[in-house]
Amino acid sequence: MIESKQNHRVKRWKKLHKRKYRDQEGQALVEGWHSVEEVLKSDWHVNELIIKESIELPQIWKTYEHVVVTEDVFSELSQTETNQGIIAVVEQPQEQSIPTAPRKILCLDGIQDPGNLGTIIRSGLAFEIDLIVLGEGTVDVFNHKVIRATQGALFHMPVIRDEILNWIDYSKQHQIPVYATALDQQALPLHDVKGGNSYTVIMGNEGNGVRPELIQQADYSLYIPIASQSESLNVAIASSIVLYHFQQLT
Amino acid sequence: MIESKQNHRVKRWKKLHKRKYRDQEGQALVEGWHSVEEVLKSDWHVNELIIKESIELPQIWKTYEHVVVTEDVFSELSQTETNQGIIAVVEQPQEQSIPTAPRKILCLDGIQDPGNLGTIIRSGLAFEIDLIVLGEGTVDVFNHKVIRATQGALFHMPVIRDEILNWIDYSKQHQIPVYATALDQQALPLHDVKGGNSYTVIMGNEGNGVRPELIQQADYSLYIPIASQSESLNVAIASSIVLYHFQQLT
Repeated sequence: MIESKQNHRVKRWKKLHKRKYRDQEGQALVEGWHSVEEVLKSDWHVNELIIKESIELPQIWKTYEHVVVTEDVFSELSQTETNQGIIAVVEQPQEQSIPTAPRKILCLDGIQDPGNLGTIIRSGLAFEIDLIVLGEGTVDVFNHKVIRATQGALFHMPVIRDEILNWIDYSKQHQIPVYATALDQQALPLHDVKGGNSYTVIMGNEGNGVRPELIQQADYSLYIPIASQSESLNVAIASSIVLYHFQQLT
Repeated sequence: MIESKQNHRVKRWKKLHKRKYRDQEGQALVEGWHSVEEVLKSDWHVNELIIKESIELPQIWKTYEHVVVTEDVFSELSQTETNQGIIAVVEQPQEQSIPTAPRKILCLDGIQDPGNLGTIIRSGLAFEIDLIVLGEGTVDVFNHKVIRATQGALFHMPVIRDEILNWIDYSKQHQIPVYATALDQQALPLHDVKGGNSYTVIMGNEGNGVRPELIQQADYSLYIPIASQSESLNVAIASSIVLYHFQQLT
């Protein structure tokens, strides 16, 4: 049992709270029973489980490398208000896990709120998206709040960080129509958008929407009609409604 | 300028962080520029604005009763990590502000996450719901996280706390069909649900869904088809997709 916060493994794990170190080490922390259960069921590589001393690890999980730590040490590592006493240290999946020929792609242009990103990933899995591309300015997908909001969906959904323009190019080469959400003159109301078996959808930042240079490159722009009294929809809501609509058309 | 945290007004405002006192006083705090701007534009009654000393109040807002407080006192009152220096003390709207004959009603059975409730209210306004009914076990609508997540929509959307059964009865009396989300044998996939100009939709708790006794009272149960790999949708997402669907049918 690890009893000291100064232990070198504890210090190394704690560094994973920061994006810089997560990227450097290619690792991340996954916290809580439900998320850990989901990551163990997935093809992600789990390096070890960190367990609080008062927690009884289920028998079947004991086959995994696990380390028991004191309450105090666990509190140092936990990123939740009331922790459940379990954290998995996982490897970030590598680029080779991208599907070979994605035909339903969701590109996110600068989503900043971790809860929004996590919820969008959860909806992406539900509505059968093949690949999610996180453009510049999007919050880190290995942020603990993002992981929690995905409710395990992250471990079953290919997500990469890349220039969105690359995926507009890919879509054009593969005859996949590209749709961006926008409020311009040419934008189509969502219900008039006729889709098919393949589509690339671009959703934008909470405050500013999709960048104009991306909208220009898209084949179509679309919007969700809302009441005049209403300013806008939350971006996770808007993304999910668009994905639901396209899923209905396949 | 108020300089002491012991000032009786400061103590009274701070009590409004707790639901018990909010209900007792019939008041609530609305924090941040965007939310304050929205509440001032609405028909809610604003008692006073609390301003941090370093903040310049826009000229047009100076007609409102406003109180300047020190940085220290403001931090005591603020419920955000990085405050914007402005809080409105508002009266909770009274029951008489319920629309007289609502025909598009959303009932929430035990929504616990403040972000979810706020986002649902925002979508309710966007998709022209007349009334939102918060059943037992639903988080307080005057919770600061709920207010923030509504992005101002709360001030334009009638929301009441009541027994959902009362609104099922109301709906039956007024020939308004009642739909509950459920995963039972009879549930209809959302795309097969044909709506009309009036509907009552019941959405349930994050973990447990709608209570069986309410599902039994509903005219129809429905579900949103999702990929087999996916466990479920976030409840704010599910609610918004259902409201979008019904709005398309009117």
